[in-house]
Amino acid sequence: MSSSAAAPAAAPVSEALVDLLGMVAYGELSAFERMAADARLAPDLRRRAAMSEMAAVEIANYGRLAARLGEVGADPEAAMTPYVSVLQAYHDSTEPRDWLEALTKAYVGDGVADDFFREVAKLVAEPDRQLVLDVLHERRYDEFAVAEIRRATEADAKTRHRLSMWARRLVGEVLSQATRVAGQRVALTALIIESGGDQAAVQALFRRLTIAHSARMSSIGLSN
Amino acid sequence: MSSSAAAPAAAPVSEALVDLLGMVAYGELSAFERMAADARLAPDLRRRAAMSEMAAVEIANYGRLAARLGEVGADPEAAMTPYVSVLQAYHDSTEPRDWLEALTKAYVGDGVADDFFREVAKLVAEPDRQLVLDVLHERRYDEFAVAEIRRATEADAKTRHRLSMWARRLVGEVLSQATRVAGQRVALTALIIESGGDQAAVQALFRRLTIAHSARMSSIGLSN
Repeated sequence: MSSSAAAPAAAPVSEALVDLLGMVAYGELSAFERMAADARLAPDLRRRAAMSEMAAVEIANYGRLAARLGEVGADPEAAMTPYVSVLQAYHDSTEPRDWLEALTKAYVGDGVADDFFREVAKLVAEPDRQLVLDVLHERRYDEFAVAEIRRATEADAKTRHRLSMWARRLVGEVLSQATRVAGQRVALTALIIESGGDQAAVQALFRRLTIAHSARMSSIGLSN
Repeated sequence: MSSSAAAPAAAPVSEALVDLLGMVAYGELSAFERMAADARLAPDLRRRAAMSEMAAVEIANYGRLAARLGEVGADPEAAMTPYVSVLQAYHDSTEPRDWLEALTKAYVGDGVADDFFREVAKLVAEPDRQLVLDVLHERRYDEFAVAEIRRATEADAKTRHRLSMWARRLVGEVLSQATRVAGQRVALTALIIESGGDQAAVQALFRRLTIAHSARMSSIGLSN
């Protein structure tokens, strides 16, 4: 991995694309680590293994994104570095205290982030658009998380209340860190804002994110 | 996953086979968790990702073994439970303090354990023999570990000495925990001892393990 590798002059790689791939790649690496650690909160071996398997999906996705960064002449490490402190801040401020909080974080927190990445992916050209969408589509463990959380929220009003507050905090932290990223990654932010053409388009994007988030909350028995 | 599931009467599954599959399955799950955690010791993102990818291989292997346990009518969770405290004791007593210790643990410690599992695998019938051998053959990251450790041991005599001591401690702990398992899992121990027919065969097994361990030590620039 050489940091002196440059994009071929014939097909200049946009800074925004490298920003996006780096962000999603580091998001996956970081999600892997957190989910692998949070698996220790599982109440039994079966659930511990299930969360570990969820984590492993993330690292496989990371590999595809890192490979693509290399292909377009970017250094994967350099592309991910801007996101290290932001993700660290997010995870430090949302350390799950138990199994249900860990699952809710994986489902609700990562869900919002994934929706946002998907929106940005629509703004870049192929094959990167499809790569990001593919990677984010890998949610085969959502069903497991939904069933686990739903069982707990249906059984107990106190748990429902506690997880509602937790989910709200998760989304608040995601938005707060996203704002930080927006301020720092100018090329990426410009891509999002310019693509819409006007403020209404950006507002529509946020509306779509909100609707998808509400649907996830309902699916686990929580109101938004 | 039901603990009341029983082996079909027509093809009774030997207790030793369930012991073996449960031991290897839990070994993989446990290796996944430790390697995922130890990846945080990596000096940079590239190496951190490489160790995370090594970890992910283990959890995929875990999945194959757990599925096979289910197929033979055993409860994966029950089959793994006897090994939880032994592996915990091993990992607690061999907590790596830095990146090189973590790599050496993954390469030398897991290497000895894998060799032992391979020896036991030869004593069970197909398809389980091949399954265990397949799973243990997945060492595509050995090259990475060897290159990293070798570079460090060749560059510095103090590091060489420190890692030699560390590797010795790892093997000592593996043997100590293996002895505990041998005392507890009677069916498995009987399989190993009876298969050889006499004490000489068991001694030959230990000689093979020692030779393979010495070869691994040499490959990373350490004497045994």
